[in-house]
Amino acid sequence: MIEEICQKAKAASYEMGKLSADAKNTALCRMANALETNVEKILAANRLDVEAAKAKGVKASLLDRLALDPKKIQTMAKELREVSALPDPIGTYLGTWTRPNGLIISQIRVPMGVVGVIYESRPNVTSDSAGICIKSGNAVILRGGSDALNSNIAIGEVLRDALTDTNVPVDAIQIVPSPNRKIAEELMSMRQYIDVLVPRGGADLIKTVVEKSRIPVIETGTGNCHVYVEEDADLEKATRIVINAKVQRPGVCNAAEKLLVHSEIAKTYLPIIIAELRKNGVEVRGDEEVQKIVPDVKNATEQDWYTEYLDLIIGIKVVGSLDEAIVHINKYGTHHSESIITADFDKANRFLKEIDSAAVYWNASTRFTDGNQFGLGAEIGISTQKLHARGPMSAQHLTTSKYVILGDGQIRK
Amino acid sequence: MIEEICQKAKAASYEMGKLSADAKNTALCRMANALETNVEKILAANRLDVEAAKAKGVKASLLDRLALDPKKIQTMAKELREVSALPDPIGTYLGTWTRPNGLIISQIRVPMGVVGVIYESRPNVTSDSAGICIKSGNAVILRGGSDALNSNIAIGEVLRDALTDTNVPVDAIQIVPSPNRKIAEELMSMRQYIDVLVPRGGADLIKTVVEKSRIPVIETGTGNCHVYVEEDADLEKATRIVINAKVQRPGVCNAAEKLLVHSEIAKTYLPIIIAELRKNGVEVRGDEEVQKIVPDVKNATEQDWYTEYLDLIIGIKVVGSLDEAIVHINKYGTHHSESIITADFDKANRFLKEIDSAAVYWNASTRFTDGNQFGLGAEIGISTQKLHARGPMSAQHLTTSKYVILGDGQIRK
Repeated sequence: MIEEICQKAKAASYEMGKLSADAKNTALCRMANALETNVEKILAANRLDVEAAKAKGVKASLLDRLALDPKKIQTMAKELREVSALPDPIGTYLGTWTRPNGLIISQIRVPMGVVGVIYESRPNVTSDSAGICIKSGNAVILRGGSDALNSNIAIGEVLRDALTDTNVPVDAIQIVPSPNRKIAEELMSMRQYIDVLVPRGGADLIKTVVEKSRIPVIETGTGNCHVYVEEDADLEKATRIVINAKVQRPGVCNAAEKLLVHSEIAKTYLPIIIAELRKNGVEVRGDEEVQKIVPDVKNATEQDWYTEYLDLIIGIKVVGSLDEAIVHINKYGTHHSESIITADFDKANRFLKEIDSAAVYWNASTRFTDGNQFGLGAEIGISTQKLHARGPMSAQHLTTSKYVILGDGQIRK
Repeated sequence: MIEEICQKAKAASYEMGKLSADAKNTALCRMANALETNVEKILAANRLDVEAAKAKGVKASLLDRLALDPKKIQTMAKELREVSALPDPIGTYLGTWTRPNGLIISQIRVPMGVVGVIYESRPNVTSDSAGICIKSGNAVILRGGSDALNSNIAIGEVLRDALTDTNVPVDAIQIVPSPNRKIAEELMSMRQYIDVLVPRGGADLIKTVVEKSRIPVIETGTGNCHVYVEEDADLEKATRIVINAKVQRPGVCNAAEKLLVHSEIAKTYLPIIIAELRKNGVEVRGDEEVQKIVPDVKNATEQDWYTEYLDLIIGIKVVGSLDEAIVHINKYGTHHSESIITADFDKANRFLKEIDSAAVYWNASTRFTDGNQFGLGAEIGISTQKLHARGPMSAQHLTTSKYVILGDGQIRK
């Protein structure tokens, strides 16, 4: 079954590569309309998933991500229209030059081909991912979590039906209609059909895909993000940023998980920031130095420094210098987003240069690492690896390039 | 042992990231000088490898790749100097923009960190790879073939010694001093230290690395390249290109392995081109249609269409249309380099657009797919995958980017 799905997607991808920007944008708008006219169908399928999940006794946070309502479907439609309005990434000339022998060489942006997306139980990821892949001229194979299977199949049917009267082939959207893990593993071996695999979800999902996939993977999303407050920082600014980075939406990958404070200001600043964090419902864990200053703080273990809590918990450490902060972050972080709060240009510069992360901030909240916040449009994830794309990934990051060479009979001497 | 090598490389990579272009270029020139002043040391080590290989009875072609002489070492030094003269890829601003909230976002080119290179028995790959990695601000871990171990250790010592009085840390060049396969496999699991792995060599080596590596891989080099002669082609031009693409250097990845000929000209053209190929010592294998026209041609099996011969052998197939040619190439090729010979703009355009390869040519030999021939400088390989880099890979392809965000206290609303 999975090989047939892959073959259909591959065949569709060759058609996708020939399409104009208009053809793709028309299809995206039809897909948005279809979501709106099929709200009842999608909600009916979603109710089956929600009931099954309740019967299984899943966590409230999972139910919240799984359950759709008319407003969430409206948002899915809106995002497809927004993607249709973005500039088309395909066909851009990245450069053209003539060689001494007269060969004219151009490097041109082209689609990847077939993109595989493996995700968890948020059914909106189905339409968001389909939209970004079609915008970038790719066929897409979507494998969502088993808890959302009925929802995903229904959304897939609606989106595929919407393509019937457009130039985008129906087979450009493929839903894997099975919750079987073996089938997911088979999908990850289909190197001859799938050009890139994007896992979207928690650390466990991403780890599994990285370990099992034979297809090139773009790792997304794990964020053990740090804020470092230097001794010369404007402490009001620091507090505003720390609270925002930790509290505004603690369950997302660009939320701060760790706070480093310079030892020179630890005595004055730790009582203030810890009180403020606690006022916002945050559990504080600290190293020995923190506990010396605020004795009722829980101990942070070695494991804590590596952990992405995705919750109202923060680890706090006192560091003796900028160097110590940089070494700590590069060792324990996930290379996602880190921020330094300082008034000093040289210190900021060293932090921005030496921290090995996708996004490095000076005097701002880590919560801005996001395609829309960066002005790049809708994203399919935030890459924490260095290959191909780093940071928020939008439609243009699902492309590759091709060299086109025009000659008049040149041969190599 | 391997973890210690990786740790040293990682530590060196953080130093590398801070270096100026001058510091790296000075080191590259010192490395070139050191090769020249240590010719005897390198040749003595190389003689041990060559004698051991002869005793084992290895093929003449492998001996030829393994054996060094003063001129080859001179060429290695020259290539290091050429790399030093190339523009520095690091620190380039790929874009800077201001967001409505005042955040200033820049995307800046930075080194990958640690590059792993796994290769076969050409000792010159040791200095070429080290040079490109240092130019791009990376530390490098080199694991060459067991047949070249003494040569690689000697070259590694010479290059590392040359770094002692420079700003490039000695540990930026690491040679794996063991022929053990288990150690190579261990190397491929060091995801926490190595940012990208580049296999350089034959199809078997690349397949092994792709299957075993837990580190992101850039696949290089397999080239089952095609030349397609359309019915309206200038046949003299076609013959010149086919002979060049097949014969000029048959053992390299951009040599042609297959010839497709339009059925309308098969009767007139096949006898001419087959005679010309045979005059150049090429063994011809053909499909039924070819054999009908030139009966003494050997039969090409299904397996032939997939095969990269790297030898004076060519597979020839008659196709009824441009569509058939495109479908055949996309199915059986390795997505490396393909050329169409035609006078027709529309046909050429379709071929250039619809063929899914790193380099597509109109009226020129496939032999030009090469970093120097494209004007990109020395290459570390030719990528046939779509992720990160496609086609000839030079120093700039061993880089990634980082978002640097300057704020004055912005928080997310």
